[in-house]
Amino acid sequence: MNLQLVSRLLGTISWLIGLTMAFSLPAAWPGVGGQATFEVRGFGALVTSIVVCLFVGIVFRYLGRNAPETLFRKEAMAIVGLSWVLATILGAMPYYLAEVKFRSDNADKPVAMGIAECLFESQSGFSTTGATVLSNIENEAWVPRCLLFWRSSTHFLGGLGIIVLFVAVLGQGSAGKALMRAEMPGPSKEGSHERMQHTALIFAAIYCGLNLILTVALKLEGMNWFEAICHAFGTMATGGFSTLDKSLGGFNSKAIEYTVILFMILAGTNFTLMYLTLLGKPAQLLKDSEWRSYMGIIFGSTALILAFGIWVSNDFNVGGHLAKGEHYETAFRDSLFQVVALVTTTGFGTADFDLWNNFSRALLIVLMFVGGCAGSTGGGMKVIRHILFVKILRREVEHSFHPSVVRHIRLSGEPIVDPDLPRNILLYFGLVSLIFTMSTQVLIGIEPDSTWVDSGQPVSNKLVDSASAVASTLNNIGPGVGIIGSTQNYAAFTAPSKLLFTFLMMLGRLELFAVLVLLIPSFWRTR
Amino acid sequence: MNLQLVSRLLGTISWLIGLTMAFSLPAAWPGVGGQATFEVRGFGALVTSIVVCLFVGIVFRYLGRNAPETLFRKEAMAIVGLSWVLATILGAMPYYLAEVKFRSDNADKPVAMGIAECLFESQSGFSTTGATVLSNIENEAWVPRCLLFWRSSTHFLGGLGIIVLFVAVLGQGSAGKALMRAEMPGPSKEGSHERMQHTALIFAAIYCGLNLILTVALKLEGMNWFEAICHAFGTMATGGFSTLDKSLGGFNSKAIEYTVILFMILAGTNFTLMYLTLLGKPAQLLKDSEWRSYMGIIFGSTALILAFGIWVSNDFNVGGHLAKGEHYETAFRDSLFQVVALVTTTGFGTADFDLWNNFSRALLIVLMFVGGCAGSTGGGMKVIRHILFVKILRREVEHSFHPSVVRHIRLSGEPIVDPDLPRNILLYFGLVSLIFTMSTQVLIGIEPDSTWVDSGQPVSNKLVDSASAVASTLNNIGPGVGIIGSTQNYAAFTAPSKLLFTFLMMLGRLELFAVLVLLIPSFWRTR
Repeated sequence: MNLQLVSRLLGTISWLIGLTMAFSLPAAWPGVGGQATFEVRGFGALVTSIVVCLFVGIVFRYLGRNAPETLFRKEAMAIVGLSWVLATILGAMPYYLAEVKFRSDNADKPVAMGIAECLFESQSGFSTTGATVLSNIENEAWVPRCLLFWRSSTHFLGGLGIIVLFVAVLGQGSAGKALMRAEMPGPSKEGSHERMQHTALIFAAIYCGLNLILTVALKLEGMNWFEAICHAFGTMATGGFSTLDKSLGGFNSKAIEYTVILFMILAGTNFTLMYLTLLGKPAQLLKDSEWRSYMGIIFGSTALILAFGIWVSNDFNVGGHLAKGEHYETAFRDSLFQVVALVTTTGFGTADFDLWNNFSRALLIVLMFVGGCAGSTGGGMKVIRHILFVKILRREVEHSFHPSVVRHIRLSGEPIVDPDLPRNILLYFGLVSLIFTMSTQVLIGIEPDSTWVDSGQPVSNKLVDSASAVASTLNNIGPGVGIIGSTQNYAAFTAPSKLLFTFLMMLGRLELFAVLVLLIPSFWRTR
Repeated sequence: MNLQLVSRLLGTISWLIGLTMAFSLPAAWPGVGGQATFEVRGFGALVTSIVVCLFVGIVFRYLGRNAPETLFRKEAMAIVGLSWVLATILGAMPYYLAEVKFRSDNADKPVAMGIAECLFESQSGFSTTGATVLSNIENEAWVPRCLLFWRSSTHFLGGLGIIVLFVAVLGQGSAGKALMRAEMPGPSKEGSHERMQHTALIFAAIYCGLNLILTVALKLEGMNWFEAICHAFGTMATGGFSTLDKSLGGFNSKAIEYTVILFMILAGTNFTLMYLTLLGKPAQLLKDSEWRSYMGIIFGSTALILAFGIWVSNDFNVGGHLAKGEHYETAFRDSLFQVVALVTTTGFGTADFDLWNNFSRALLIVLMFVGGCAGSTGGGMKVIRHILFVKILRREVEHSFHPSVVRHIRLSGEPIVDPDLPRNILLYFGLVSLIFTMSTQVLIGIEPDSTWVDSGQPVSNKLVDSASAVASTLNNIGPGVGIIGSTQNYAAFTAPSKLLFTFLMMLGRLELFAVLVLLIPSFWRTR
């Protein structure tokens, strides 16, 4: 392990975070986010944090001044994991220094965010989860506008980081490699390093471009610039932080909701495919089996939720005082919005899906594990892994009575010859199952029943609520059911649970390995 | 696929079932099970069923009269799966013909069991699950004694079948093979076929011997012969059918409970190890890592449940009117009993664990997936798979930063060199996760909320209750939480759900593959 190299890159990360914080400073001026006065405390907290970031960056860069140029596998993994830890800590500072207020139970009196809350909120931002401990965020006395802007900026930075990381590190796994190698254009003469930089740059450009387009669209549809930028950040990073207490539903605008649905779907689409579409090859998008499955899951689930919500239950109140057509439109929009919000792992809310029937609620919990496409900003397990999972299971069952027949898994018509692929996919599902089960059990153990009592939630729902909280943080979504339903948040949990969630969000966002290896002693021994 | 061979063996199975039914006939006589009069209806139903079994056997044997001697892999799988289907259907007949009464909701008026109920009860017996739709079983007007005896006999037959199948088919998988090959004694000159028969015979003898010893022990501890035999069958097969409404708790006897705990633990122990112990090599038992983990899980979980039940919650009412020591003894016995009952997948009840704290309830649900040791009558996923699962996950995470290092998984100190093992273990966990998730979702969809309302259970628990019902049937346990809690049963569910459970019980008992292949069209095409 070459710690000098790790150190130098951590220094760069610190500077990048400090630079991004600087962009939140203008939001402290009166009127920018609708506030009446200059936000002294928020501005001060940001300036102090920027100075700390610069200083930390200088120290890390100094420690790593003699680092070699070559990046080995172990160093790459360490940098990914450690830079996320560093970002979380640095990003938590402004909340702590500004003494942002939140309400931890039903009492009206707010308290200042503690260290666990700040780390949770920071990680939730960078991991593009969008889970929050904050309520009453429209009240600038509780949450300064400039910190609300910083909160959304962490989404932007996290989304950008994931897109670049996919190219550099995560996309090197079997599934990602198969996709990248097969479809990414570029002069084949280029070395893999130059080509990687080239690809990362294109992806970053697409990401920034879509953020820009969405910001303008949301502004035109009635948001102010502050809201438009924050919601564009939340959408394109599949994060989910809003600037309103009622999340996106607070705008009460069909145009905004349909626009956000479209851009959430785009954010969950493989950036390689978007690039190919921009190059005038949209056929690649329709030919891609991951994207087709992704769209199939979205519209299939919406249809199921609509069917159960209309015929079995009466979730959408069809037949009320609105005209019938309008009712069906609302039902369709609400179902589609929630499905897209959960599948892409954005987690915005427009309807309280926790009031829907049990089938729909269970389906939405299952959908939490689906996630976006590989090479998108979407979290979760990724659609491609589910496709391969099902194909592998089917093949292996056939294998049990035809042991001699060797058949390659095919994806979009192409055979995948990587012999390690089945094991890697099954391994990922195994790890997620184990982490999910153990974390839920630990959460139920460390979180007292009184949390439910104090929040006015039935204690009998503790098992489901806890499972949904773990699923939601591990898959970087945000809301869940019951105590963390779409009208609730994570404030009620005790500090140890919040730290558990913080860990789970990081674990999920970095697709497990880059975090798990940090916990293994032999990883740190010099090679 | 040689269907003649399949047919011939199905004929033998039919005869075996008819023969076993004959042993239930004496239980119809007055006084045997405490009944006042001769049970005409039950006796008639059994006699008719026996005749049908004989006839079906003759037809199958006739169809398969020209079958070859050699058994290929595909035929073996088909026979395992189909014989279980046949046994379920034949075993359901007596319930149907005797018009056994059950109560499907809170109403007091009983109705005769329908086809779905009979198949459910029969499968539950053969798969040694012990889930039931029957209540008020102490009332002979509802359930004739001779059918109660038949019900317990299906456990005996199912347990015997699994023990023999393990040797013949299931034990041929990687994990089973590793255990069998390494430790099973016997002259190496014998061919694999003779050796297999020899082993199967020894295992069957141990199984019958333990049934006999337990019967005598229970008789001495206060049961009558009828109860003693039925409960021995239920214990040694890790089934769980009782003859009392309150299950084993109805005897209110410490001696009986501790005896059953011991024999449940034995029933969940690898029969190879028991044989070695009988041969005077008990050290093998203590050296075996699966058995040590099995005991560790049992006592570790008991300690956790005791700790939470005493210090966090007040589940055992310690400090009530009994002397303190007595309280702790009861708390220990109840915890240990329920842990053993669920880990070994027996499912007997002495305490209503559904009233315990949420941590203990969640832990018990997780324990449902553990199961007994390989080569025991215990169901579930088996301890060995969990050990290998954790070892494989750990190795693969290390592999991610040390791709060049190849390290074999070790079990009880011996390296396992089978290259397919990691994939097979991960595959099994993947299949269980997928089947569990999909079945739960389907169950929530097909079972109306009114089932909960009619049973006086909160509808808000539908998700957890449904998940526990699927976990309980798939792992062949019996009870779960909420609507199928230890004081409830499966009667309230609609027929489609009961058929789903019937399928899940078979799937779990035959360790998935022998059932799944039957659903694949290419399996049936001739080679």
